Amino acid sequence: MQTIATDLDIKDMARGAVFLGTGGGGDPYVGELYLRRQLVEGRSAQIIKADELPDDAFVISIAGVGAPTVIVEHLVSTRTLLRLLEMSEKYYGRKVDALISAEIGGANSMFPLALGARAGVPVIDGDGMGRAFPHLEMTTFSVYGCAASPCVLLDDSGNATYVHATTDRIAENMVRSVCASLGSMIYGAFYPMSGRQAKDLAVRDTISQTLEIGRRIRHARESQSDPVEDLLVLLNDPAAGRHARQLFMGRIVDVRHETRDGWHWGEVLINSGRGDEPEFSVEIQNEYLVARHRGRTVTVVPDLISVLDAESAEPLTAEMLSYGQRVRVIGYSAAPIMRRPEALRVFGPRMFGIEEDFRGIEELSTDSRL
Amino acid sequence: MQTIATDLDIKDMARGAVFLGTGGGGDPYVGELYLRRQLVEGRSAQIIKADELPDDAFVISIAGVGAPTVIVEHLVSTRTLLRLLEMSEKYYGRKVDALISAEIGGANSMFPLALGARAGVPVIDGDGMGRAFPHLEMTTFSVYGCAASPCVLLDDSGNATYVHATTDRIAENMVRSVCASLGSMIYGAFYPMSGRQAKDLAVRDTISQTLEIGRRIRHARESQSDPVEDLLVLLNDPAAGRHARQLFMGRIVDVRHETRDGWHWGEVLINSGRGDEPEFSVEIQNEYLVARHRGRTVTVVPDLISVLDAESAEPLTAEMLSYGQRVRVIGYSAAPIMRRPEALRVFGPRMFGIEEDFRGIEELSTDSRL
Repeated sequence: MQTIATDLDIKDMARGAVFLGTGGGGDPYVGELYLRRQLVEGRSAQIIKADELPDDAFVISIAGVGAPTVIVEHLVSTRTLLRLLEMSEKYYGRKVDALISAEIGGANSMFPLALGARAGVPVIDGDGMGRAFPHLEMTTFSVYGCAASPCVLLDDSGNATYVHATTDRIAENMVRSVCASLGSMIYGAFYPMSGRQAKDLAVRDTISQTLEIGRRIRHARESQSDPVEDLLVLLNDPAAGRHARQLFMGRIVDVRHETRDGWHWGEVLINSGRGDEPEFSVEIQNEYLVARHRGRTVTVVPDLISVLDAESAEPLTAEMLSYGQRVRVIGYSAAPIMRRPEALRVFGPRMFGIEEDFRGIEELSTDSRL
Repeated sequence: MQTIATDLDIKDMARGAVFLGTGGGGDPYVGELYLRRQLVEGRSAQIIKADELPDDAFVISIAGVGAPTVIVEHLVSTRTLLRLLEMSEKYYGRKVDALISAEIGGANSMFPLALGARAGVPVIDGDGMGRAFPHLEMTTFSVYGCAASPCVLLDDSGNATYVHATTDRIAENMVRSVCASLGSMIYGAFYPMSGRQAKDLAVRDTISQTLEIGRRIRHARESQSDPVEDLLVLLNDPAAGRHARQLFMGRIVDVRHETRDGWHWGEVLINSGRGDEPEFSVEIQNEYLVARHRGRTVTVVPDLISVLDAESAEPLTAEMLSYGQRVRVIGYSAAPIMRRPEALRVFGPRMFGIEEDFRGIEELSTDSRL
């Protein structure tokens, strides 16, 4: 068991969550504020390893659903979170032994910790993707047999919905529609699972990872060493099948954004020199999905692409990118459980309209600093 | 207790339901077919008066939700209806003693009878409006304190949703969104109520009324008497606060239809002579909402407006109106429970953007045949 008990921890975690959000996932800021208030009030978030749980423990995911812009404007309500937990325990007919994040990247890294701290329920160190994705079916939970529904949805006015869908793709549509009909943001309890399932299906240790990533960037700044260098040392772990590279460093020469079919589409073009044709591009569909160097793919979904401010190494969401900014682009292989054929059928390149087969970053690219 | 046991009864009821649908409410045809199949299989629909129920009986409304065009293309599934009943009993924690229609006008007149016949549950002779309306909050149940939610929704693929909204206006939005997300039609159980509430809140005897209206029109055709004459004799009951008039007879000289904001908007213009300016108009918002003679309102919502084929007296839905058709327009006062101030605040003229106060047909018009 590990305790998150300082403001610095929470800020580090939020920074790491934006890194793993790969441009999307929403801003963790409101969850971060809420969690910091819990500390002031004498509470703390307890983080446990999945292996500490008995196989027959009962675990649920807590997540916010809504447009990122709405989430940012929306304060977290203690009453809503506690009521959601109470309703979930009643609906599932089980006391909840632990919470787990479905999506560690972005805002949904914070909500299980926020509720966990408030209600005294531990949070499992792991999640369902090790990054951010826009749909309920795009989790290791869903891919490997733990469905998102039956799920419980609640908004701050007390409007409650229980969805029991035949597939997670349909659950996604239903949940998204309920959210839109309430004109705002809702919280939900999803993926009811056993302790055994949490052990087998989660991408492991991703809360610790947000904390480590955030810390590493902060320490490098404080010691004026190269934060990307330090980050790559942290992330590279070939024995565990994890590979990280700096893909490119340069200046943003064009950013295009468009909201279409409820997605944030866009492309960012980056150039290392002056006045030349752009050398490097990153395509955005909510998240950064494919990075190309002179047209050649160097990292593609579900592997992670993160864009950092070149000086501070602050991870940047897609909305934060602007013309003229100097950035460094990092590629990071997804966890092995995210790269299996059954997983790639749900969130591989073709599921996002990218007409190429998945190939891992270790095969596609070398470190641009070498 | 009354038994609906012949094809003729069902056809008469469907005809009467279109009359009370005041142009909207959807075509009862699929429900009619289903109900007729039940008779062939040896079942029948049992209709009871609300007063036959104990006060502590448990009653729910069964309704189809979806675009009328989808409903017509959609066969009624026994499995879905029976499962909806089973899920409702489990969710509400009560055995269902009787069903009631929320909306007697149009397609939703048939679904409670269809399930009632199949499952052997009696159906109360009454409904929540005595006509058709497009929203869940537009029922006497809702106006007088029996909320539409918690409600149970189910589609034919087995996708289930339980909605518990803070108001029926919000429930309407949520239910409509769930329906849209499933791309089709759903069935729902709404307005869980006691026997006492059914007695106090329902518009009474409206199933009998559909049967009587349909019969009266058929008999008049068979005996070659004037069906409208006979219909007005049936409907006029000043002692019970009910008034019916022929508002106009003429030829349709223009029909405009438009689908906007999910509503069917339109206007039909009718003329008694040739080549003159139109004398009579009916405005459509899903239902026929206001009838005007030379610009002066002669019947307005919630009072009922029905358009009949001039020869056969067949009631016509808004979609069926066409240029050149000879029609007779009937106005019919809503039940007194529908005309109280608290009811008019929910479905009076201004709720449909008609900028006038409600006045009853008995005050606004005389019979055009006099």
